[in-house]
Formats: sequence, C-alpha cells, structure tokens
Amino acid sequence: MAQSKLQPVNDRLETFVEKQKSLRERAAAEKQATAIAHPNIAFIKYWGNEDDILRLPANPSLSMNLGSLHTLTTVSYDDNLPGDRLVINQEPVTDAALARVTAHLDLVRRQARLNAAARVESTSNFPIGSGIASSAAAFAALSVAAAAAAGLWLDEAALSRLARRGSGSASRSVPGGYCQWVTGNDKTSIATSVAPPEHWDLRDIIVIASQEHKSIGSSDGHRLAKTASLQAARVAGAEARLQACREALLARNLAKMGPVIEEDAVMMHAVMMSSRPPLYYWNTVTMDVIQATQHWRAKGLPVYFTIDAGPNVHLICEAKYAATVESEARKIPGVEDVLISGPGGPARLVDSASTVFGKSIGSGYNDR
Amino acid sequence: MAQSKLQPVNDRLETFVEKQKSLRERAAAEKQATAIAHPNIAFIKYWGNEDDILRLPANPSLSMNLGSLHTLTTVSYDDNLPGDRLVINQEPVTDAALARVTAHLDLVRRQARLNAAARVESTSNFPIGSGIASSAAAFAALSVAAAAAAGLWLDEAALSRLARRGSGSASRSVPGGYCQWVTGNDKTSIATSVAPPEHWDLRDIIVIASQEHKSIGSSDGHRLAKTASLQAARVAGAEARLQACREALLARNLAKMGPVIEEDAVMMHAVMMSSRPPLYYWNTVTMDVIQATQHWRAKGLPVYFTIDAGPNVHLICEAKYAATVESEARKIPGVEDVLISGPGGPARLVDSASTVFGKSIGSGYNDR
Repeated sequence: MAQSKLQPVNDRLETFVEKQKSLRERAAAEKQATAIAHPNIAFIKYWGNEDDILRLPANPSLSMNLGSLHTLTTVSYDDNLPGDRLVINQEPVTDAALARVTAHLDLVRRQARLNAAARVESTSNFPIGSGIASSAAAFAALSVAAAAAAGLWLDEAALSRLARRGSGSASRSVPGGYCQWVTGNDKTSIATSVAPPEHWDLRDIIVIASQEHKSIGSSDGHRLAKTASLQAARVAGAEARLQACREALLARNLAKMGPVIEEDAVMMHAVMMSSRPPLYYWNTVTMDVIQATQHWRAKGLPVYFTIDAGPNVHLICEAKYAATVESEARKIPGVEDVLISGPGGPARLVDSASTVFGKSIGSGYNDR
Repeated sequence: MAQSKLQPVNDRLETFVEKQKSLRERAAAEKQATAIAHPNIAFIKYWGNEDDILRLPANPSLSMNLGSLHTLTTVSYDDNLPGDRLVINQEPVTDAALARVTAHLDLVRRQARLNAAARVESTSNFPIGSGIASSAAAFAALSVAAAAAAGLWLDEAALSRLARRGSGSASRSVPGGYCQWVTGNDKTSIATSVAPPEHWDLRDIIVIASQEHKSIGSSDGHRLAKTASLQAARVAGAEARLQACREALLARNLAKMGPVIEEDAVMMHAVMMSSRPPLYYWNTVTMDVIQATQHWRAKGLPVYFTIDAGPNVHLICEAKYAATVESEARKIPGVEDVLISGPGGPARLVDSASTVFGKSIGSGYNDR
C-alpha cells in the first residue's frame, strides 16, 4: 500500500532529476540557462539579520512556495559583452537592481572562474516589489540559471546558500513545497524542504491591497530590525513558533497552524512599526482584511492571514475553501486584485523561456 | 519676576483648595456630592496588571487629562434605598456596570463605616466605551463624589489609589494636568501630577473612527496581556520610554516626545494583536490616520499619533497646529467625528450637576 502510493513520486523524482541533469549539461555547453522559481509565503517570518552582507537570518523561518506564481530567468554569458545587462519584464534596468544582480553573478563567476559578462532576462507573472517575495523568486531563479550557465554543478544546499546571498528568503524558494530555512553560518544557513507540495493542498489567496512598489525595500527594512526593542522578543520566540507551525503543518492541522502564523505575522509588523524610523506597511485594505478574517472564521470559514513586507494580505486555507475565500475577499472595498496559488515545486532549469508561457514548463513538476 | 509669575497660580490654588474644602463640608452634611473628572490620553500606555483585583499595573504610565471632555457624577447616599441605583447619561443601568459601581462604593462605605445604598448619576460629554478612557473619568469622578458624600476626607494620593481600584487609568485622572502613575503595591501605586495643565498647551485631536461600544472591554483585555509573548519586552522597556517621554514633556519638545509615544502605542497594540486570543482594535480609519500622520509630518506638520484600547486615533500637537490637524483629519473617509481637547485639571468637587452645563464649573479650574 505505502509502496504503491510512493511509486509515482519516485517515478516523478527520477524524471525530474534526469531532466535537470540533461538541462544542466546543455546549459554548460551553451553558456546559457533558463530557470523558473516561485515566490514563497512565509508562515514563520524572516526579519532582521545576524549578518547583513551574508544575509544570515536572526531567526529560522518556514514557508510555502507559491506554485502558480513564478519568475522565469535566462542567463547567457557572453565574452563580447562589456558589462552585465538586465531586462526585467521586457524593460532594460540599469539602476541599483543591476548592481545587485552583478554582485550576485560575481559570486557565481568567482566560483566558476569565469570572466564573461551576462545577459539576464527575467519575467514574472505577478506584481513585483510589493511584498509578494518577488526578490525570493528572482534570486532563486537567477542562482539556478547563473550556476548552470557557468557550468557549476551545485546541489540544492549550495543553490539555497547562493540564493540566500542575493535575498534571504530566496534560500526558501530553492527547495520544493514547504521549506524551512535555518540560522547558522554562511555554510549551514540554508533551506530544506520539510514536506513536498503534495503533502497538503493549501491555498494562498493573495489579496492585493496595493500594486505600488513599496517605498522601503526589504533589504533596508532588515537593517532596521535591530532598532526595534521588540525584535529580541520576536526572535527569542521564533524557534518555538516554528516548531508549533511545522508540527501542525506535518499533521495538516490548520486550526493549530493558523493562530501561530497570524501571531508571527503580527509580531513581524510590530517590530517594523516600532523600528526607528518606523515602517508601516499596512494600509486600510490590509486592516479591513485582517478584521474580515476574524469575522469569516467566526462564521465557520477556516481561513487565517499572514502578511509579508508589504500591504497585501495572504489568506491561507485548504483548497476546498479557496473559492469562498476569494469571493469574500473580492467584496472588500479597495481590493485591487486577488491571486490564488497552491504549493509549488523547487527552483529548477526549464527548456527555454518561450515554452513556459504555454501549457507545460517542461520540468516534470505540476505546480498548483 | 519669577514670583509675580507664580502669584496667580498660588492664588488660584488657594481658591481651589478652599473651594474644595467648603464643597466637601457641605457634601458630608448633605450625604450628597457632585464631582467632575476628565478622561486622559496616555502617552506611555498602561496594559496588563501585576494584580488584576488591585489593578496594580505591569508598568508605569504617563498621560494628559483631557480638559474639554468630562464625566460629571453625583452620588447621594440614602438610608431608604434598598440597593444602589445607577443612571448613566439619563439611562438607568442594571447590568455588570452597576455591579462594578457597587463594588467600588463598597470600598468607600467600608472605609467610612457607612451602610446606606447610593444613587449614582453620571453624564459624559463624549462617547463612552469606545476607547476614550471613559472608565478613567467615570471612576475618578465616582471616587471623588462617593468619598465626599460619605464624609471621608481623602487626599489626592488616597483618591488616586481609590480610583485605581475601579479602573486602572482612573488613577491618572485624579491629579491635574500631566500625570504619572507608578507601579508598586496597593498603597504606593498611585498617580501624581508631573506638570500642571498650564505647563504646555498641547492639543489632543481625537479622530473618532467608530462610536461603537468595543466588543472586549479594557478590563478583559488587561487579563489577556500576559498571554502575549511581546508583553514582557514591552514592559521591560516602559520605564525607559517613560523617562524619555517625561523629559521631552518637561522640555516641551514634541519632536523628541512624538516618536516615543507612537512607538509606545504601537507596542501596546502589538501585544493586543498577538494575545491569545488576539485583540484587533484598529480599523481601516485607524490605519488611514496612522499613514496620514506620517505624510503630514513629512510635509512639515508636527503631529504624532497615539491610540488607546479602541480604534480612535489621538493626534497630539501644539495648540497652534490644532486647527490644521483637525481640518486634515476631517478629510479622511470614514471619520465619524473629531473632538479637540487641551490639558485638563484634576478630578474635583463641583457645586452641582446643573451648573456644569452652563459656563462655569465652579471649581476654580479653567480646562482647555
């Protein structure tokens, strides 16, 4: 019984591993690779670093990759390029974002003993820079593509570590499904999967409260965490909240998990709002959805909120309630849009950018 | 120079003391007294008790009495009454509120060796039960009137202590102006004035985000404080925030005081929102005003927010900016009303209820 249930997963895993191997070999030969990665929603939040350069987090965190949201990134090294080029959603980018990508490529180039500049093209199917972990998906995809195109053979742990250097939460977008990112040093602070996407068909109903690019990015925000007197208390309790959340996740018990993720989200925003200067990411729609969540639950709809570094609210429920939650959320005044996602797979190489927007992303994964 | 400046205050103080003495003598003879008290807005918040029965606070707090808001309470002992009677804003009350008043009267009766039941009539000129410290004004006025009508000669410290037993923050509505309430035991945990109303002409522009009676009262809320893991951190830093706030208050430095009061308010609400179960007092209007305050300040309007246990936002500024702040606040959608108050005097006896609604409250104090 147990074996027959496991069989398809093993089959799929083998297909996946073999497919990745062949894509990696082609990438190394062509000095070009395309990777896909999903943003993730943290149930236990990452906020504040022990080391801002290495992005070693102050506390462990736990998240779910968002399968229906993705960033797709192609990296091609070219000896004839005078410098790195970056195109995001068809727009050439030359500001601080390019500098951050160049710094990240340098980590790869140093390891691969490569000097060529790179052309980086990235496309996302969700609003970026508004607190849906766009940098997580971006740096996870960039890490996988840049390493493969450079001919580096990095395992998941090494890729998670590399992604972490670009954006802390990107470490959690490297493994698949539900991922935990641990504290530690540059070598040990990586994310691993605690359960595959198939484990639990949760849904994240993302209520877009604003598509505006946030005025203070997460990297700057993380630096402010240490100015908040609540940060130490938040960090001190994070491990216990993570254990409680992980146990409930493994037991598929949302009634136990929900209150923990709401508490954890509120604690992160409490730290933000009591930083010096304070960071207020919530807006009126955020507050309305927080209040509505309590009312929905009181009426028997099992849904819980969490909020990343932005005004958008992520409503977490089981798949069977997603349509009801979505329709309730759309009734709230000021809601700009609602996105829905189930759990997603790992960051991975794909055949080429063009195929992704068709039916298959050709990676052996069926994200939800 | 200094003497001539002090002269009027001394004159006034003497008048006030003499007036209170004559009112107290009459009250004792008639077994009836009327007292007025102001609600207060806390700059450093009280949330959570060391002892819920004695209402010994977990941390010290600092507030300003609100001179243009008041509760007026008449207590008459009557040997022929079968039990205590309570009328609030012309409505007879028989529920838990009466039981709470009876328990408070019992403290006075025990001390005065009095057995008579009392008729208590209370009127407020502001919305009650929505987080404008209505219980603070109510129990400060009740304490002053009940003690005087019982022939008890209690000094300010004893009245502050008595008021505290009815509602913690009521202890701060007993002295005048800007008041500090210290932690301690039943005897030592009292409030004293740190500066008179004349010290600094601050204004509290109260943005009414909802006049609904809150679903969870402060007394129940205080009991939840210990379930929040952030409470210990909030309490641990309260003394330092209070010192910083008091220094800035004494120096009339709002640019220094403002960030501290905002941080302190956010910390209290962080504790509330991360209690088990959580308490969400903020609504969309609350959030809008918080965000607007940042924008106003960025444009050069020196105003800071604080929020008590309710959705209403208190905007603190110097008197000269009050009209601008009020007009800006009224532009925010969903704002039900805006009240304005300067600093107010102590809880005190007045001639009778009827005169208060005329021009003079006959207490020697000119509240703002």
